[in-house]
Amino acid sequence: MRRNIKLVIAYDGTDFCGWQRQDKDRTVQGEIELALEKMHGEPVSLAGCGRTDSGVHAVGQIANFFTDIDSIPSDRFSPALNTLLPHDVRILHSCGVDDNFHARFSAVSRTYRYFFICRSLLPHQRLYNVCLRRFPDIALLNAYGRLLLGETDCSIFAGAGDTSNSKNRYIYSSVFFTEGEKLIFEIRANAFLRNMVRSVAGTFLHYEENSASPEQLRKIIASGERSQAGPTLPPQGLFLWNVEY
Amino acid sequence: MRRNIKLVIAYDGTDFCGWQRQDKDRTVQGEIELALEKMHGEPVSLAGCGRTDSGVHAVGQIANFFTDIDSIPSDRFSPALNTLLPHDVRILHSCGVDDNFHARFSAVSRTYRYFFICRSLLPHQRLYNVCLRRFPDIALLNAYGRLLLGETDCSIFAGAGDTSNSKNRYIYSSVFFTEGEKLIFEIRANAFLRNMVRSVAGTFLHYEENSASPEQLRKIIASGERSQAGPTLPPQGLFLWNVEY
Repeated sequence: MRRNIKLVIAYDGTDFCGWQRQDKDRTVQGEIELALEKMHGEPVSLAGCGRTDSGVHAVGQIANFFTDIDSIPSDRFSPALNTLLPHDVRILHSCGVDDNFHARFSAVSRTYRYFFICRSLLPHQRLYNVCLRRFPDIALLNAYGRLLLGETDCSIFAGAGDTSNSKNRYIYSSVFFTEGEKLIFEIRANAFLRNMVRSVAGTFLHYEENSASPEQLRKIIASGERSQAGPTLPPQGLFLWNVEY
Repeated sequence: MRRNIKLVIAYDGTDFCGWQRQDKDRTVQGEIELALEKMHGEPVSLAGCGRTDSGVHAVGQIANFFTDIDSIPSDRFSPALNTLLPHDVRILHSCGVDDNFHARFSAVSRTYRYFFICRSLLPHQRLYNVCLRRFPDIALLNAYGRLLLGETDCSIFAGAGDTSNSKNRYIYSSVFFTEGEKLIFEIRANAFLRNMVRSVAGTFLHYEENSASPEQLRKIIASGERSQAGPTLPPQGLFLWNVEY
């Protein structure tokens, strides 16, 4: 009997050209579809929740696929796929879901976490954190973060090649906090524009360094002018943390 | 004027065949000597404190070399070398030292830290931690650890190919503790046999799982029989943490 299987996926994005399948480059979707094809003896299409950029990691990416294999219980697709997958991608969990579940269209929101270390990075930290040369004013960053809450025109944060019709996104939370030596930026929204998290963080840190007031930043965001955004930060510290349904 | 320069070095051991220079394989000493040769226009020999295994990392490796270059202040060798080095090795600090300083022979002791996570590793953790399937009895592990303190015959912990004459080592500390979700084993000794830290940790965890008493383990260590040791654990979670002079 045809079943719809949901996967919770973690990956180290370092050696992937992002999530989305491409003809030539190594991608996470491509690797998992290859494993599914080995398992099924025919191509199987995998629907993912979010297209992460090259170099971005995940600990809670969600995807789903339909299977006709009766001999594998829903929760055993996880270990079965892991034996076929390379070590930089792991299926943390698998379960059966309703036929109408779709990893992307059923998702209510996505949560990303961005990890910063406020000094030179040690070599073993370089692929999983972004280096900040100084310790920023967290209260000011959080005042900026509150400007985004609710339905917000995110045009200034849209990376080149973003093809969304509307640039409005509903932002549920946007907060900076510390954990040990790390500064973490967590943002949750119904969906994100291309490169948006990297641009939001880069813009906030740029204006914080220049001591812009929250009111100044409000006007900059409202301008809708991409040229007003700060730099798009590197992908290395960014993790797709969770997807909410 | 000829100067003796001391370096503090960090590296991600993942893509290195250990510290020690080899003819064909990529090593940390080899990369730094290559950078020194570019800088000096002739080969420069680098003396390192400890030979870490393939896959073992460092945040406090120490090395020294002699230079005739007058134009670079001692503390500027660090940034100058970093521009010539690949990103998985960084010189954290450089300074001038007495001519009789030798990174290896002047060292009083070395400290290693071994990082464990007591569940399946996420992909971005796999190169910097060892996975434990269960949470061990830390009090029992620390009772084992105390058996090593002082001058101890470490024969059972010597990896194949260890060429030391005496297998006695002076162990200053040997302790397990937790930090967040991680279990850390820290051990400091005047020097270590080949693969010794990986063998000590593997032996302790093996006998802890079998609920051996400290007295039983004392006899096992005293037997000097390598066959009594537990498994040698993987290198991924091990860091050369510090060298004391």
